[in-house]
Amino acid sequence: MGSVETPRERVLVLYGSLSPEVEESIREMFADQELTIYQPKPGEVTPPELYRKATILATFSHLPKPEDAQNLKIIHSFSAGLDHLINNPLLKEGRIAITSSSGIHGPPIAEWTIMNWIIASRKHFQIYEAQKAHRWDDKDQYLRGNHDQAGKKVGILGYGSIGRQIGRVSQALGMSVYAFTASPRKTPESKKDNGYIVPGTGDADGSIPVSWHHGLDKASLHSFLSLGLDHLVISLPLTPQTTKFLGAEEFALLSASSTSKAAKPYITNISRGRVLDQDALIEALNTGHLSGAALDVTDPEPLPEDHPLWDTPNVQISPHLSGIGREYLPRSLDILRINLGRLARGEPLINAYGGKGY
Amino acid sequence: MGSVETPRERVLVLYGSLSPEVEESIREMFADQELTIYQPKPGEVTPPELYRKATILATFSHLPKPEDAQNLKIIHSFSAGLDHLINNPLLKEGRIAITSSSGIHGPPIAEWTIMNWIIASRKHFQIYEAQKAHRWDDKDQYLRGNHDQAGKKVGILGYGSIGRQIGRVSQALGMSVYAFTASPRKTPESKKDNGYIVPGTGDADGSIPVSWHHGLDKASLHSFLSLGLDHLVISLPLTPQTTKFLGAEEFALLSASSTSKAAKPYITNISRGRVLDQDALIEALNTGHLSGAALDVTDPEPLPEDHPLWDTPNVQISPHLSGIGREYLPRSLDILRINLGRLARGEPLINAYGGKGY
Repeated sequence: MGSVETPRERVLVLYGSLSPEVEESIREMFADQELTIYQPKPGEVTPPELYRKATILATFSHLPKPEDAQNLKIIHSFSAGLDHLINNPLLKEGRIAITSSSGIHGPPIAEWTIMNWIIASRKHFQIYEAQKAHRWDDKDQYLRGNHDQAGKKVGILGYGSIGRQIGRVSQALGMSVYAFTASPRKTPESKKDNGYIVPGTGDADGSIPVSWHHGLDKASLHSFLSLGLDHLVISLPLTPQTTKFLGAEEFALLSASSTSKAAKPYITNISRGRVLDQDALIEALNTGHLSGAALDVTDPEPLPEDHPLWDTPNVQISPHLSGIGREYLPRSLDILRINLGRLARGEPLINAYGGKGY
Repeated sequence: MGSVETPRERVLVLYGSLSPEVEESIREMFADQELTIYQPKPGEVTPPELYRKATILATFSHLPKPEDAQNLKIIHSFSAGLDHLINNPLLKEGRIAITSSSGIHGPPIAEWTIMNWIIASRKHFQIYEAQKAHRWDDKDQYLRGNHDQAGKKVGILGYGSIGRQIGRVSQALGMSVYAFTASPRKTPESKKDNGYIVPGTGDADGSIPVSWHHGLDKASLHSFLSLGLDHLVISLPLTPQTTKFLGAEEFALLSASSTSKAAKPYITNISRGRVLDQDALIEALNTGHLSGAALDVTDPEPLPEDHPLWDTPNVQISPHLSGIGREYLPRSLDILRINLGRLARGEPLINAYGGKGY
């Protein structure tokens, strides 16, 4: 049916290295279109004739010269952010729509986040070490220290697609969710997530938070940190305004306002290392003002082998991989698949930069 | 207000060892009642005069002689099951209501379950080992193997309070939930959870599953295992009928009906070790028919140091502690607190054995 009604686009997918299985699934997704998959080797320039032919380009960072982009209607980026693309001369004229992969990171990063919380609150690495040693620990040693998330409060700094999926799972765990955004979200319309949402996930209408807070000034942030939070999740974009947004003063405030008898507040950073003062974080963990931290990002990355953060008490570090997994590419291309349908029907594209769409 | 309207009961709480902090929180919970907390030492008999005075008893297993129980109206058990109590002569006459702590285990066991899934699907113990070695792994090595739960199917054998909280979190993760119960649940009323539910958790009206299945015969089970499940959670009570309910044939069927390209089915056992054929499980894991198993229970317990299960590929073993944590006792006593209000108002008790209530 679709193949009769939908005009065939000439889709060029550029991706470094694909397993045969993923390549096959891409061919299935775009069976209605004329598809070219090209896997450039590191440093290789994609042959210009491939660009010239394409009407649709899916790419991380490879872009054609303007003279080779005459037929392009959409450039779909495999990245969530488009900063690395929007200053390209090709895109400045505004004729070609650019779409991002924003929205696909919610499930893996929310799972990474929740997993870290539970490992920490259950001391589960101890259990893992006991299994390696074939040791059946007496459960009484875990009885008083272990706790769970039901009834606890999570504050989410940056309530985008990732923050929303963390909010969704948190609510299911029995927690109260507090959202913090840079700009005010006072109307139902402004609370909505209008981007791509992985089916069955997220918070499309923004109904999960018990309250919304906003502002990038210290007073707004401090008011948010005084809510008595058990968890603080940092999923803000890194900008000049959010660099070292949290430091010694903020960690002290968070700690002092905590009312839980189970544990001091726990920090999760899935933004960028420099969004917080890392030395102040280490100090707050060493002194017990915070009960722990899950860090997918550090400053610098990779974290040097001799850095004190590795052995700071109750820190769980991952090498900036919370968003990855085998679903990454299929979900990103699902956005493009949806947009090809919208293009054919003359509807606005989703995830389009600057709202640009055909 | 409540203190004026509610008659004072004489509440006796028997618990082996309490921290001062938990003891204080219990005193707060029952500030309206006349409360005695007694902490019997191992092997010690509780002084009979304490029993004689009490109108309400909260206990794990200590019980008075019938002649010392003249004033008792309710015995509240800190256990979810009442099997160890109901044959006591004291309770056979039916004058005293018995209430269980069923329902309080949902949050911790659901968190334990989800944590194990995500550790497995993200290979997170590798990340933990890398942190111990101060090693920032290249994320590309995790790109193709890691996966998440969104879009996957979970079958829950035994959709009680624990299964429901697992269902709730699974749905939030973007999964489809399939419920399996011993007896049919065809009416909205029969799908309800009428016991205690930790606030903000569970599936009170049974609306989460996409479909309900039932039966303790092989044909019913096999039909359920053929749904193409990615996860199978076993939270059935162990009875003669459910002993070795799952064996080689069932694991093979589960494996064969799986359609996911990400991973073979994953088993979670939070019931009892003997609900499955453990040798067959080891075989299914060794041969890759199952991608992994999270086991909070084994056969026997403790698992002997030289047992092959410890090192079976992709097995994650915990020493039967998924339900424990600092919230255990406060939640159990919250049930009693609710029931004291119900007793005062002449309403039926919740969590009462045989529906017995004042």
